[in-house]
Amino acid sequence: MTEASQKDPLVLFMPSGKRGRFPVGTTVIEAARQLGVYVESVCGGRATCGRCQIEVQEGNFAKHGITSSNDHISPIGAKEERYDRVRGLPEGRRLSCSATIEGDLVIDVPQDTVVNAQVVRKAATDRVIERNAAVQLCYVEVDQPDMHKPLGDLDRLKVMLEKDWGWKDLLIAPHLIPQVQSILRKGEWGVTAAIHRDMDSSRPFIVGLWPGLKNEAYGIACDIGSTTIAMHLVSLLSGRIVGSSGTSNPQIRFGEDLMSRVSYVMMNPDGREAMTKAVREAVNGLIGKVCEEGGVDRHDILDSVFVANPIMHHLFLGIDPTELGQAPFALAVSGALQYWAHELDIDVNRGARCYMLPCIAGHVGADAAGATLSEGPYRQDKMMLLVDVGTNAEIVLGNSARVVAASSPTGPAFEGAEISCGQRAAPGAIERVRIDPVTLEPKYHVIGIEKWSDEEGFEEDAAKVGVTGICGSAIIEVVAEMYLSGIISEDGVVDGAMAEKSHRIIQNGRTFSYLLRDGEQKITVTQNDIRAIQLAKAALYAGIKLLMEKQGVDRVDTIRFAGAFGSFIDPKYAMVLGLIPDCELAEVKAVGNAAGTGALMALLNRDHRREIEATVKNIEKIETALEPHFQQLFIDAMALPNKVDPFPELAKVVTLPERKVIVAGGDEGGGRRRRRDRG
Amino acid sequence: MTEASQKDPLVLFMPSGKRGRFPVGTTVIEAARQLGVYVESVCGGRATCGRCQIEVQEGNFAKHGITSSNDHISPIGAKEERYDRVRGLPEGRRLSCSATIEGDLVIDVPQDTVVNAQVVRKAATDRVIERNAAVQLCYVEVDQPDMHKPLGDLDRLKVMLEKDWGWKDLLIAPHLIPQVQSILRKGEWGVTAAIHRDMDSSRPFIVGLWPGLKNEAYGIACDIGSTTIAMHLVSLLSGRIVGSSGTSNPQIRFGEDLMSRVSYVMMNPDGREAMTKAVREAVNGLIGKVCEEGGVDRHDILDSVFVANPIMHHLFLGIDPTELGQAPFALAVSGALQYWAHELDIDVNRGARCYMLPCIAGHVGADAAGATLSEGPYRQDKMMLLVDVGTNAEIVLGNSARVVAASSPTGPAFEGAEISCGQRAAPGAIERVRIDPVTLEPKYHVIGIEKWSDEEGFEEDAAKVGVTGICGSAIIEVVAEMYLSGIISEDGVVDGAMAEKSHRIIQNGRTFSYLLRDGEQKITVTQNDIRAIQLAKAALYAGIKLLMEKQGVDRVDTIRFAGAFGSFIDPKYAMVLGLIPDCELAEVKAVGNAAGTGALMALLNRDHRREIEATVKNIEKIETALEPHFQQLFIDAMALPNKVDPFPELAKVVTLPERKVIVAGGDEGGGRRRRRDRG
Repeated sequence: MTEASQKDPLVLFMPSGKRGRFPVGTTVIEAARQLGVYVESVCGGRATCGRCQIEVQEGNFAKHGITSSNDHISPIGAKEERYDRVRGLPEGRRLSCSATIEGDLVIDVPQDTVVNAQVVRKAATDRVIERNAAVQLCYVEVDQPDMHKPLGDLDRLKVMLEKDWGWKDLLIAPHLIPQVQSILRKGEWGVTAAIHRDMDSSRPFIVGLWPGLKNEAYGIACDIGSTTIAMHLVSLLSGRIVGSSGTSNPQIRFGEDLMSRVSYVMMNPDGREAMTKAVREAVNGLIGKVCEEGGVDRHDILDSVFVANPIMHHLFLGIDPTELGQAPFALAVSGALQYWAHELDIDVNRGARCYMLPCIAGHVGADAAGATLSEGPYRQDKMMLLVDVGTNAEIVLGNSARVVAASSPTGPAFEGAEISCGQRAAPGAIERVRIDPVTLEPKYHVIGIEKWSDEEGFEEDAAKVGVTGICGSAIIEVVAEMYLSGIISEDGVVDGAMAEKSHRIIQNGRTFSYLLRDGEQKITVTQNDIRAIQLAKAALYAGIKLLMEKQGVDRVDTIRFAGAFGSFIDPKYAMVLGLIPDCELAEVKAVGNAAGTGALMALLNRDHRREIEATVKNIEKIETALEPHFQQLFIDAMALPNKVDPFPELAKVVTLPERKVIVAGGDEGGGRRRRRDRG
Repeated sequence: MTEASQKDPLVLFMPSGKRGRFPVGTTVIEAARQLGVYVESVCGGRATCGRCQIEVQEGNFAKHGITSSNDHISPIGAKEERYDRVRGLPEGRRLSCSATIEGDLVIDVPQDTVVNAQVVRKAATDRVIERNAAVQLCYVEVDQPDMHKPLGDLDRLKVMLEKDWGWKDLLIAPHLIPQVQSILRKGEWGVTAAIHRDMDSSRPFIVGLWPGLKNEAYGIACDIGSTTIAMHLVSLLSGRIVGSSGTSNPQIRFGEDLMSRVSYVMMNPDGREAMTKAVREAVNGLIGKVCEEGGVDRHDILDSVFVANPIMHHLFLGIDPTELGQAPFALAVSGALQYWAHELDIDVNRGARCYMLPCIAGHVGADAAGATLSEGPYRQDKMMLLVDVGTNAEIVLGNSARVVAASSPTGPAFEGAEISCGQRAAPGAIERVRIDPVTLEPKYHVIGIEKWSDEEGFEEDAAKVGVTGICGSAIIEVVAEMYLSGIISEDGVVDGAMAEKSHRIIQNGRTFSYLLRDGEQKITVTQNDIRAIQLAKAALYAGIKLLMEKQGVDRVDTIRFAGAFGSFIDPKYAMVLGLIPDCELAEVKAVGNAAGTGALMALLNRDHRREIEATVKNIEKIETALEPHFQQLFIDAMALPNKVDPFPELAKVVTLPERKVIVAGGDEGGGRRRRRDRG
């Protein structure tokens, strides 16, 4: 290679912005490599795989001092012509292994867009994950056997993979050893090897081998939740998501929530095995589903990344989770783990690997690590609160200086359990609620019905769909609206005195309920429902506050709501209820399945694996149960939005009611009221 | 650690001879480690495993300037007393982890002797293999779980293994992950980890884990021959062989020799699988046998090393050997390989590893590599010839400057096949023969009968045992004696004219035979038998000569005969027949199963693995079939001892007959004779 001089053409690669001077005649891919710009290639410069396509941007780029033109790149040669004839080259695209630099150029490396948080209904944000997958496909032509140099066929394959691709000290997956000779002969000495360059052993591994040119490889990113298992199927070569799907976790038949599953293991001698088998079968089934969606053979899946909460993590890996059911909540293993997929009974290519993100703590799992990787509080300076609400809320708070994490036992109220008329989000479930503060009359929106309940024709539609209950997001809204309209006090007590004003306030024994929908199937919000929500949100808020105290801050700059729950609730109502601390509303964002997005990032770029491994080591874990202060924070957080904390940002957009205290129950009748200033 | 000064005590370790000065109070084991003297330890200085025993040599060692005395080592302390009480400390022995240096010392590190070539009946040479096993046992006491630092149990185990033993970046065998928690709790946080530090991935691996102190680990070294599988069971901690045994290779039922087994694979769709299964089952059976012999639980076997000829190598690893049956004899893989033992269906500890030595060429296998490691031509300056005679003779020739290797197709004659009265070495087989050159009367020795055939009472014993045939070593002797006594010419023709002199020369159609034993079961040596031996020895000798030509030498300095055949034949007769080139007789040594000894070396010292891997890369392989000169060398080598090569060393001890040429067959009757000078 000739030393580049100031007279050589200047080449700028987009979108990375990397630039450098290269002698005329240098191939574009060689220039990219020298600058560290990632351009895929499988065939090794033979112009057969078509993976290294680029596009010349024409024009005068004054800012960069470059006039770029298709005249500054070599004309299409014989190899590219052949490729275009056989497989087709899109207009304007060139093969960077064949095209050479002839003058100044601005070159665009097309990036397939990876959609973040596909499962999120709203606020889906696009994101480009820079690709640096663990698996690379490498085509080589191997020397034929020579009696004078009796190196084995595999050994000569390794020689060529080092010579053409620079792979040193290659190892090979044992199942391939007996296949090497027949594959080499079938490919007439031209074969494609899949190299896994992120083995925990640090040496690169041949994990797949095909005769001739193999031009596609896939990976899966999977989040194993207690209720739902979600999966992306993605091309490791283009980064394109070709399938995304979910399935319910069949372990539900052993226990609805995590703790009941741990109990099942403790009570049944083969309970752990049965649950491991169930979740692995579900994962295999889901792989079938995403493969069908993407038109992909499951044996073309060569890598996989998993995230899960600690108990799912243990059960999926075949580890007894009993220790996680009791203090000190000892994880069997917290660090990141690698397996052969077949060791976990995952039915994909035999040479496929599994990478499991690290767990943060006994109740803050690899799923929280995935969400942390996705949202990256440690990558920026704002104080970011990341909340994943489930049966256990996983809470991460921090910025580039310091990150702390905790879990808080919110219980299942947010998911609609423990709520008298609670139900899952499905047609017939109330999902939006507004209450008129004067009349106390509600209007609501039902899944499957386009009109609001106060619009004409609603009841006709309702007769068809049915109105059957309240889903999680609406529970938050209705309680918040009841508070805003004065039906409940800041202590969460339904004001019985209001029964005089409205027929919707109904007495049940010593407490009162709010009648959200009358008719054949009455839907009410009881005092018990409100208590359940209060307990859940107090646990969450107290955990957040504890972390804020650890960080020494009394406000957060930005909030990320991960998980399905976070996607459907209205941040304003979450704040009115005091689930989350005061914050500028525009800074509260739902990010969908951030855990799954983190898994996807780790799948597409192995640098993200090192990033989250290092990050998790530095996250400080707070065990809420051990903090003497937690109890007081919890009690304060029972109030709406909070007994002691001000919500100035919220107050800018919502008129909070005057404080009134109603002593619940019949002892003092309608109760006593007092005022307090806010803001 | 204080810097040692010239005033500090001088300590000399034997047998290594390493020495150094250490401050008073330094433990002996610490001094050993600093000098690189290998002293085993499992408990990590807790004085519980007893593995680090040493002995003080008392006296004035003028040569070293040391007066060593038990007064110069600390008195027996509480820990050693406890160990002595519980497990017993032999007289004079001390625990080097507890005893400290108090003055000048000569310290003996006792070495358990490893016997080389146990299967060799005679000339067994003792050899000490310096120990540096791939597996080390390490006892640690792990911190209990702490909610404030929620590192997983496995992760804390790793922390302690790094802190106490220096293991960085530890990985763990996947099957252990679900067991870590229960083992830690069963051991009350004290556990012994087996660390494999020779994984092909280069990172150390936790391959075994036991509650409390585990003080023993074993390994097996195995040579898979076409006919026989031989195995040593050895303590990885002491180096002691606790069991050695052999079994016949059950693949014999698929084909007697290697090529017939390759044919079986080619002819039968599941032939490869059946043979792989058969050999693995035999290995498992043999493991049971050596474990019974040594009183060892097979699950305490943590490492294993295998050698085999190329076809056995492939079949054992599950690789189709078809390519080895035809030019260019392509090995699927030639480099050294590592597996988990269970990947090869070997039933030992689940965390045990298998190391397979590299193959040298398509016909020069890992067994030849093992023999090369054992005898080490490359470790010395003499020109060493190493011959392993089987159906294929594997030949290695070289010294520290250069090593060349080849195989030669000797066929099965040396093993008694193709010989009319040939049989395997068993009671009733003639194993020694002498022929009186004047009377042409033989005397012979039979396996199972103490007396020679000319001694009184022989026939009484023979009536009991039976005299049934001639074994391999006796075939060499009888043909050589027939030559020395003039019965056959240098061209190997039985001199029919002698029939006049002796009734033992019998005509069979157009050729003559020699009647070795008369009676009910006649034992004869036919012209065909002699031809078969000539063809075999000519192939061997021509191969050797080719290597000598490559090396540019016309004589070798020293000869090693490996394998069972080599152990039983008399070097003198081998030389009279011209199997091997002329050489001082004292320099011709049988070394028994050198391939197995090489496997043992690689088992006990992982440095030997690197040594043989590097050596094999540098060995030059000669394909005899491709050498145009081979044919002429072969023809010359058909004569006894050789048509063109002189045998001056042999002539010093044996009077070689005058050269006489007899044209075989009836064409010219008794044939024509001529003379030639020798020496």
